[in-house]
Amino acid sequence: MEQRITLVTLGVSDLARAKGFYEALGWRGQEVEETVFFQAGGLGLVLWSRDKLAEDCGLEPGPTVGFGGIALAHNVRSEAEVDALLAAVERAGGTITKPAAVNAIGFYSSAFVDPDGHAWEIAHNPGIPLAEDGSITLPDFGSL
Amino acid sequence: MEQRITLVTLGVSDLARAKGFYEALGWRGQEVEETVFFQAGGLGLVLWSRDKLAEDCGLEPGPTVGFGGIALAHNVRSEAEVDALLAAVERAGGTITKPAAVNAIGFYSSAFVDPDGHAWEIAHNPGIPLAEDGSITLPDFGSL
Repeated sequence: MEQRITLVTLGVSDLARAKGFYEALGWRGQEVEETVFFQAGGLGLVLWSRDKLAEDCGLEPGPTVGFGGIALAHNVRSEAEVDALLAAVERAGGTITKPAAVNAIGFYSSAFVDPDGHAWEIAHNPGIPLAEDGSITLPDFGSL
Repeated sequence: MEQRITLVTLGVSDLARAKGFYEALGWRGQEVEETVFFQAGGLGLVLWSRDKLAEDCGLEPGPTVGFGGIALAHNVRSEAEVDALLAAVERAGGTITKPAAVNAIGFYSSAFVDPDGHAWEIAHNPGIPLAEDGSITLPDFGSL
């Protein structure tokens, strides 16, 4: 198995609401057959019916509970960008679950959930520099 | 907000078990402070305590239920690769939740869950070609 992810699919209960939320944050994608595809670096972020996604995975959809067990992180280039993004999230109808602050590791981070409860961490972490295209190359942590 | 994901963090209940599972599938990463980081294309796949991840997101960890609402897809270059990967998943202790078959859209797909229940879809989908480095560029679905 090569070390990569092709798609990250977020199960949603209301596709229009979910699409509107990400569009309000500036994302632009394509909607096809009740599915929204966003190009996200070298992979795709997809919005799709939570029930259909569960079925497609051979799983019972079950109840939507608080924390689904996965968090997506979106790192930005400055603390000011973290603040600006959180303001946009609130305007778009997301919920800030952790106000921006310097965390125990020493970088500025925050978190929100989208309208379906999917967790995003928004951080400015100079320890993991962003390339021009937004990609990262993990540092050699052993040398830190 | 730029359209990209920096990290995908999977909350796990037993870090050694989770790390061993992905290593058995051929992933190689770095463990630092009870966290495992894998380079995955231009982003990082991270394994971290589910409780700590929830706390870091400002959320209650809550119960681990069946479907967490997110699926990761890993597309490969042939149907034979799908079959080989599923065999490796079973050897590594994952659970096949959808046997490989041609789906309604017409491509060969399957799904499994890792030891913590995180869902992965494994597919050979010629409609979304993989670049040499494993990245994808979404097609213009309007032209399909």
